[in-house]
Amino acid sequence: MSLLVVGSIALDSVDTLHESRDDLLGGSAVYFSYAASYFTAVRLVGVVGEDWPSEHTALLRSRQIDTDGLQVIPGGETFRWRGKYLPNMNDRETLEVQLNVLGDFEPKLPDAFRRCPFVFLANGSPAMQRKVLDQCIGPRLVVADTMDLWIREEQADLMELLARIDGLVLNDSEARLLTGEENLVIAGSKVRQFGPKFVVIKKGEHGAMFFSEFETYVLPAYPTAQVVDPTGAGDSFAGGMMGYLTERDNYDPDTLKRAMAYGILTASFTVEDFSLDRLRRIERKDLELRMDKYRRMLSFEAT
Amino acid sequence: MSLLVVGSIALDSVDTLHESRDDLLGGSAVYFSYAASYFTAVRLVGVVGEDWPSEHTALLRSRQIDTDGLQVIPGGETFRWRGKYLPNMNDRETLEVQLNVLGDFEPKLPDAFRRCPFVFLANGSPAMQRKVLDQCIGPRLVVADTMDLWIREEQADLMELLARIDGLVLNDSEARLLTGEENLVIAGSKVRQFGPKFVVIKKGEHGAMFFSEFETYVLPAYPTAQVVDPTGAGDSFAGGMMGYLTERDNYDPDTLKRAMAYGILTASFTVEDFSLDRLRRIERKDLELRMDKYRRMLSFEAT
Repeated sequence: MSLLVVGSIALDSVDTLHESRDDLLGGSAVYFSYAASYFTAVRLVGVVGEDWPSEHTALLRSRQIDTDGLQVIPGGETFRWRGKYLPNMNDRETLEVQLNVLGDFEPKLPDAFRRCPFVFLANGSPAMQRKVLDQCIGPRLVVADTMDLWIREEQADLMELLARIDGLVLNDSEARLLTGEENLVIAGSKVRQFGPKFVVIKKGEHGAMFFSEFETYVLPAYPTAQVVDPTGAGDSFAGGMMGYLTERDNYDPDTLKRAMAYGILTASFTVEDFSLDRLRRIERKDLELRMDKYRRMLSFEAT
Repeated sequence: MSLLVVGSIALDSVDTLHESRDDLLGGSAVYFSYAASYFTAVRLVGVVGEDWPSEHTALLRSRQIDTDGLQVIPGGETFRWRGKYLPNMNDRETLEVQLNVLGDFEPKLPDAFRRCPFVFLANGSPAMQRKVLDQCIGPRLVVADTMDLWIREEQADLMELLARIDGLVLNDSEARLLTGEENLVIAGSKVRQFGPKFVVIKKGEHGAMFFSEFETYVLPAYPTAQVVDPTGAGDSFAGGMMGYLTERDNYDPDTLKRAMAYGILTASFTVEDFSLDRLRRIERKDLELRMDKYRRMLSFEAT
């Protein structure tokens, strides 16, 4: 099985209370791919400029990530994002965005990528996401992310997209914005009525909620004392989740719940250092160890 | 076994986006007692004025709540609180506080109450809480609540109290205030260093965290679409938790985790209507039904 992801590739600058870092490897498709690579082969589609360090491509290739869909634009510059985290490490401010080559990104799937059964449309304009879908041949499971910008400014396009996908992943404030509903249990159900068979609401340090026709549940985040840089946590969550679904070649309710848990645990590693630095130091067995702890944490006998 | 609680008894006025209500039965000791009464006999100590409706006492007595420790001050007026919830139903503003008879409250335990093995010191000044402890004879488990006011203004007294209790229950913002630490995993451990053998951090709609020498974990709130009035959720949590510990006559780690879950579920009912109205419509079996759903929600097989 393999998993296709189309999304942003970035050079990030991150300010936290304790430390600032520039020119970090980042972007939704990068975090997603690396997280998913613990579980499955990944096919990455995205765009970078001539300033893109070739060692970043080499790093992705060193995992099971196929970068044949990486467009390098001659004379172009890579998308850049600069953000600052508030002391609570959950809220952040975007200080600067340079779209650069991402502004004109025309996703083009290599022929070999078009029949990927599992597809993730990382954050991007709904119009761009639909162009990806148009190139996919018979995908089994299509899941998308979105953001406040598209909810506010491209709502009609977004609604068309929602009617075509199987799952939507979005964060709590986006779910509230999209539905006008403060209660997340209600908001999640309302999002599902726009089309997706399932909806995942990410709550940052508070975990994630799942909604389908059959069930509504919430799983907490894995408690970590070491939150260094939350950038990419949401994309790592999606990568862990979709990676596991692809590995199992299945998305029944039990598999989806385990996938949610793997997503949460993959993200719990991501936040423990800048960029991919923490993920680079772990192996699949570290995810499994944390999974054992997480399952024990959430289990108790009835009396 | 029986459970002693000392705390506030109030007539609350609550404004929410959808509805306002005046003169509601409330107060930390009231919510706590009623919640605990699903599990155990409760002995309540508190103070009210002459304006206190006798049907409220009758309601408490109709459960297994002993009101012999209820002081009625002739000519006095009952403590009153008025608050307004923000649309998210998680944050609130206190609009008005009339301490009235609570301002001069001198807790006095009836002799029959002094040997209660399980004791909960609901929110009150640390000096008052210590006066209660001074009257207890050989308690097995003492757990206290506190609030930002005491952390800010009575910190020395609070520290003395923390050295004498087994468990502390406080909310997330209070844990941050008490420790100066934003990360709740670190904050919880730091609070424990002040004395309590275990610490519970309540996170409102996001559940609760537990800290002891042996373990740190988080359990999510039970997702409910119907949040009508969150007043008393924290006290109901504590009541469900302490009620269950008292019923089991035990506080080993497994029992504590189940107690946390019962606390979360009791609170999940409280928020579904004003005052005690939702709790009044449920029985123990409703808690058990929700417990079954909650355990299923949090369990998944390893692969």
